[in-house]
This record gives sequence, C-alpha cells and structure tokens, in this order.
Amino acid sequence: MREIPESEIARAELDAATLHASLGDTSMESMNLLNEVAGTYPDAISFAAGRPYEGFYDVALIHEYLRTFCAHLRDDLGMSQAAVARALFQYGDTKGVIAGLVARSLAVDEGIEAAPESVVVTVGCQEAMFLVLRALRAGDRDALLAPSPTYVGLTGAALLADLPVLPVRTGEQGIDLDDLADRLRRERAAGRRVRACYVTPDFANPVGVSMPVADRHRLLDLAAAEDLLLLEDNAYGLLNSAAERPPTLKALDKGQRVVYLGSFAKTGMPGARVGYVVAGQRVTGGRGGDVLLADELSKIKSMLTVNTPPIAQAVIGGKLLTHGCSMAAANRRETEVYRRNLQQVLDGLDRRLGDRAGVSWNAPTGGFFVVVTVPFTVDDALLAHAARRHGVLFTPMHHFYGSTAGHHQLRLSISTLAPERIEQGLDRIAALVDECLAPRAAGA
Amino acid sequence: MREIPESEIARAELDAATLHASLGDTSMESMNLLNEVAGTYPDAISFAAGRPYEGFYDVALIHEYLRTFCAHLRDDLGMSQAAVARALFQYGDTKGVIAGLVARSLAVDEGIEAAPESVVVTVGCQEAMFLVLRALRAGDRDALLAPSPTYVGLTGAALLADLPVLPVRTGEQGIDLDDLADRLRRERAAGRRVRACYVTPDFANPVGVSMPVADRHRLLDLAAAEDLLLLEDNAYGLLNSAAERPPTLKALDKGQRVVYLGSFAKTGMPGARVGYVVAGQRVTGGRGGDVLLADELSKIKSMLTVNTPPIAQAVIGGKLLTHGCSMAAANRRETEVYRRNLQQVLDGLDRRLGDRAGVSWNAPTGGFFVVVTVPFTVDDALLAHAARRHGVLFTPMHHFYGSTAGHHQLRLSISTLAPERIEQGLDRIAALVDECLAPRAAGA
Repeated sequence: MREIPESEIARAELDAATLHASLGDTSMESMNLLNEVAGTYPDAISFAAGRPYEGFYDVALIHEYLRTFCAHLRDDLGMSQAAVARALFQYGDTKGVIAGLVARSLAVDEGIEAAPESVVVTVGCQEAMFLVLRALRAGDRDALLAPSPTYVGLTGAALLADLPVLPVRTGEQGIDLDDLADRLRRERAAGRRVRACYVTPDFANPVGVSMPVADRHRLLDLAAAEDLLLLEDNAYGLLNSAAERPPTLKALDKGQRVVYLGSFAKTGMPGARVGYVVAGQRVTGGRGGDVLLADELSKIKSMLTVNTPPIAQAVIGGKLLTHGCSMAAANRRETEVYRRNLQQVLDGLDRRLGDRAGVSWNAPTGGFFVVVTVPFTVDDALLAHAARRHGVLFTPMHHFYGSTAGHHQLRLSISTLAPERIEQGLDRIAALVDECLAPRAAGA
Repeated sequence: MREIPESEIARAELDAATLHASLGDTSMESMNLLNEVAGTYPDAISFAAGRPYEGFYDVALIHEYLRTFCAHLRDDLGMSQAAVARALFQYGDTKGVIAGLVARSLAVDEGIEAAPESVVVTVGCQEAMFLVLRALRAGDRDALLAPSPTYVGLTGAALLADLPVLPVRTGEQGIDLDDLADRLRRERAAGRRVRACYVTPDFANPVGVSMPVADRHRLLDLAAAEDLLLLEDNAYGLLNSAAERPPTLKALDKGQRVVYLGSFAKTGMPGARVGYVVAGQRVTGGRGGDVLLADELSKIKSMLTVNTPPIAQAVIGGKLLTHGCSMAAANRRETEVYRRNLQQVLDGLDRRLGDRAGVSWNAPTGGFFVVVTVPFTVDDALLAHAARRHGVLFTPMHHFYGSTAGHHQLRLSISTLAPERIEQGLDRIAALVDECLAPRAAGA
C-alpha cells in the first residue's frame, strides 16, 4: 500500500548532542573501553578485571542452590508446592524475597542488626547506588562527596542521577577525614547541599587500602556532628583472611548515619547480580506519614526494575542457606586464594622491580587490588601497547580519577589468576616497566 | 571507647521534601497501594493484578531450561565446560548473553529483522523504558508524548528521568492520531522538544484495545513526516489467539522510526525479569564516531545494573530454545486460557449487568484487560470496600490517568483466574455494582 522504495526512505538518526549529558562523559566509556582492549587480546594475561576467582565454578551448584532454596520455602516457611513455584516464576515483592536471609547474614557475618524491612534487594550493588543517589538528588544545589580516586560505578550512577561528585583526598589509609571535614564546610558555605559522603572502608576499589578502626569512629562522629549521611560500600570486606575483621561503619553506627550498600557479586556469584541496600533511616513529613528510606528506595525500584529476579535471589538464598547464612564461611577457599595471590604479587613485584628508581606499590592486606606507581605516563595507549607487545593487561588508574590524575599509576587485580600465570604476568609487567624506563636509563 | 548512652544519640532523619520529586508523585504510590489492598485481603478474588496465568508453573521447568541453555552453549557454540560455567556465574556482556536468541525470536514471532547488536537485554521491560527515557532526556525543554490513560510503569520511569509526559487522547481503537499530530505541533510551537511518543499498539494496558493496521501505517507516516521517534511497547501482542496477528510497528518500520520495547514477563516468566530493547537508530556526532542507540543504552545500563543476570537470561534462553525461538509457540496453552477467560468475563458481564443503565464495558479481542464504565465514583475507597465487603479486587482506572480522570471506570484483569473463580468473582462485582446503583434506583 505504500510504494516508496526503501532506499529513499529517510532513516531516523539521533544527534549525540541531544542525548543525556552522562553519555558525553568519559567515565561512562571506561568500562567499555577496558572491555574492548580485553576482547581484542583474549590471550593476554589479565591483571585488569576485578572479577572473583572462577576456579570453583560448577553449574551443578546452581541447581543445588535452587533446590536448597525451594526446600527452605517448603519446609521452613510452610509453602505449598504451588506457592514455591509461584515464588520463583511470578513477580515478587519489590524489596526482595530474600530480604530476611540478607538481614540474617548481616547479623552472622558483620554483627549488623538490620530489620528485614530496612533491606531492599537490588540488581547488584550498582542498582542500590543508583536508587540512593536518585532519591537524594532533588535539586541543582545537591552534591555528593566521595574519595578520589573512586569506583567508576559510583561516578556513573551519580552521572545518571545528575548529581555532581565532589572529590575528597585519599590518604595512605583511605579517605582523608580532615580534607572531608574541610571540603564539607566549604561546600556548604558556598551554598551546596551535600547529601551524603560515599566511602569504602574495606579494601576500597581501586586503591585497595582499608580505614583503621579509630578512623571509622572519627568518621561516624564527624557525620553526627555535621549531620552528614554516609554511604558505606562493602563489596570486599568479607574476603579477609585476617583472624579478626575490623567492624564496618554500619556495625558501629548507633545513629542511623550509615546507608549500607551490600554486594553478593564477589561473595555470592557475579552472574546472579544480587546486591542490596540497608536504609533504616526515618523519612519524615511525607503525605502518608513517616516511612523508612528503604520504603522510598523500593518505590523508585518499582519503576526501575520492578523487582530483583526471584530466580537470581533464589540462587543466592540457596548459597546462604547452604552455609548457615555466612558468606564468610561460603568463601573460605576463595579467601585463601586471594590471600595467596596477593602475597605472590607483592613478593613478585619486589623480586622483579624492588630496585627500580621511582617504581613503588602499596601493600593492601586484602581485597583484589595493588596500585603500582611508575615514573612514566600510564594511559590507554600504554595499555594497548602492553596488550599487543607484552601480552599483559592492567587498568590505568586515571580511569578512577575522571582522567584528572593518576597518570603515573596502574592497578593490578590479583583475583582470578593461577600461580604460574601470575609469575608469567609479572615477568611481562616487569618487561614493560623496563622498556618504559630504558630511554631514561639510556639518557642518564 | 565512646560512652554516650544509646538513647541520647541523635538519629539521622531525612525530610521527605528534600528527596527527588518523583517520590512525592501519587503515580509512584499506585503499585504499592494496590499491592497493599491485595495483601490485606488475600482471600479476595482478584481481577486486579496483570500477572500471567500460573497454572502451568513447575520448578522442574527452570532446571530443564537451564540445562537446555547450557547444552546450547556447549554444543551449538562450542564452549568448554569451564566456559559454560563462567557464562552463568561470571559478569556477562552488558548487552546480554541471549541478544542473539532474542533477535532470532523477533524474526520467528514478529517478522522483525533486528541485528543482534541493536538489542540490549534488560531487567524487565521496565529497565528498557528507563534506559531509553534517560538517554533521551537532556534538558528542561524535553518531553514525551504518551496516550492517556497509560501504563503506570511508563509514568514512573519518566518521573525518574525527570521527563514530563504530555497526554494524547485515546480513542476506541487506541491512540488518537489526530490528537497526536495536533499536540505535537502545539508543543513544538511552544518551544518543547518532543523526544518521542510512547505507544502500545497491541492490547494496550490498561484499556486493552488494539490499533487497526491502517492506523499503524498512518502513525509511521506521521512519525516520518514529523521526524518523531516512536517507543513501541509490546508486552501482550503475542498472546493473541487470532489466526493472524497484526504486524507490529517495528515490523512495518523501514526508517528506524521505532524503538521496540520487548518483554518476556508475560510470555517467558515474570520472575526471570528479562526484557529487552531494540534500538538500531544511528547516533551521529559523538566523540568516538557514529554508534547505535543500543550502544548508548548499553553505556547507561553498565552504570545502572551492569548486566542482566546471566542466570535469568539462561532460563529465558532455555525456554526459547525449547520452542524453536518462538514464544508464541511456547504460550499456546496460556493463550487459549486467556482467550477462554476473556470470553467468559465478557459473557458473564453481559448476563449479569447487560441491562443496568449507565454500565458498559469494552470488548478487546485479546490481552489481559477489560474496562468497565459505571455511573458512580470508582476510587480507592470503593476498592477497599469491595475487598472487605464483597471479597473482590479490581483496579480503579484513575491510577492510569495520574488521578486526573477515569473516576468512573474499573479495570478487570482476566489472566490468572480459573473458570469457577471468574463466575464467583463476577457475582461479587455485580453485587457491588448493584449496591452502588441502589440509592440511585431508590431515588428514581
């Protein structure tokens, strides 16, 4: 009925300049760019991806976890066979079908007392971040404090919520509290409404360092004195081989200063994409009376992803049930791998590069990352060269500074490699470093 | 070390007025409010929820779909056992691990030719909507056209993206094209930048009507003439027992005017929360050269949910593979249930209420919904009364009009009830209607 030849039909196009500002920000490209390099050189030894160890993956476990979760619904919660099927197949509660198990695991693993109604189960910690930032961003004066360098996912979520991130200095042991207090006062004096400060006390991505316990108390005191909300991200804290883990901010928090951002990506399974947020703060003055911040986040979630896939929650729920609701217990073997790998990388760097002038690295006690400082420029071109010429991948640190700093640092992730690949990979890193130092040495 | 008694510690509170404006909008409460009524009266017969039929749910199917998908990775794609495990456990590609299967199913079921790279698999169609609206909203002049009444999820996603929705009249056969053209020109003349028009040509939620094929052509012509993007939502179209389904807008679209929003919630399984968007539009003028709109949406997704849970995608992928990539074939039994239920509700209304003055209803040929018009006010108070006094639930239509209209209509969902429950439920609806008509009759 319409006879225009296809070649003559004008095709709709969109001008990039008419799209949301986040899409023009280089931070949004970091993930894709790094994945692209990794995809182009699949045989390179990768110290780049912050992925958990894959050595114990087994599809049979997924079936087992699902069966365990179904048995729990049937035997512990008294559900009929039809109700169990509905719980997995049908739309679920917006806050999540495993909010109770998550609350129990927080008690077991972290000593955090969280009421199940303050928990919202999310599609990874990433959705939790966006929910919180979307809720907190109401106007143009609003802003968020965060340490620099910071996790690119935080930067991205803030861009999507149109919420500017104001950088706070990172010291040897995490966020610099004096700089935080100073920055907060200056921003407020300038008319900014600082909605919260994002912080990762345990093995922060990308620098890998942890806050001393005394600093955690100081930070909570500062938050109380300044009426500042803290967003605590704890993706790595559980993967700690030390006899005693330091308490999280949330465990020390008596005044509801902390919104806790939890992840099962590293401890449960990345492919389930299950995270959560604990937000027990009271929200006052709403039309329907006082509610919890978790209730407001759940309203946003109902319009963003409706609910976290019950199937994915069931797998994580099954894993929790299998290990007495302790992800620390569930990850004993992995934690030992991370401890061993971290030590091997630190020792290996020392053996190979210990005497190179201007080359140094930090020494985290856990987590996935080591940051190496070098006296030459580390950019994406060097990464491409390293992949092509040396067959090794890392992450240029400038990606975590919005490209404003970090141009002499690279991040090594220790989580996925087997011992012999680590040695081989470090040989290649050392060769790259020596190649970059050579002109300098030649000129000296 | 800190000795302030707990009772004296000031607790952080948030003032509702300082939160994002979406949280103050009644549309965001609709879902929760309706769920609450349903939760308070669990034994009421529910014509409220737009959930798919549950009669064929069986947990064994989930295990089977997972095994089928794993066999596909191994046998069709040649993956090793370790690679298969990684595909399910580890982070996946941002655009999705089943984008290729989705593209194949669009060809099989809808005659839509979609390149796999134009597909982004999302956490339900809801995330797809948000991704598109977030990408399209760049400034305060931006707005979206959508029929009124409209799906509450669209209203909610637009609120989260700070994108105003401008209502277009709905006629007897879906969106009123004259009103659309008129509105578009007026808004543009007033300085608005209309980014797109949202439309559901097949069995639109909540009214249940479908657009005639001629109107679909007219709409595409209008879009081409006015350089307007169309967002086609097609959650229900496949569940059509007619011998021939009308073509989707996307199948007729030769000029990339249509961004297609797909859902497996009704056809696959709501609990997997898998949807997708097809966005093959070229985006020009970006820093990195031309890309597809799908690539830009994928960048946003990487900062929102990172990726759709591979486990959930595997279940949907397994179901697609089991049925030759045809969700129409996979839903033959369900489609027959919906056809039978719809007819039973229409016949039952006719028998019970056919002679009541001022009471009428539409007669959709498919989908989940029938809209009943009555000569008395239908509000949330009436719903609560119906639940308490008559043991029956429905959805007051004002929820789909942002409470600005629809105060004499109620939506009946026909999808989940067994035949005898439908009869019983319609008896109760009829009793409610007669009760509400009584004072009128008495006064006459």
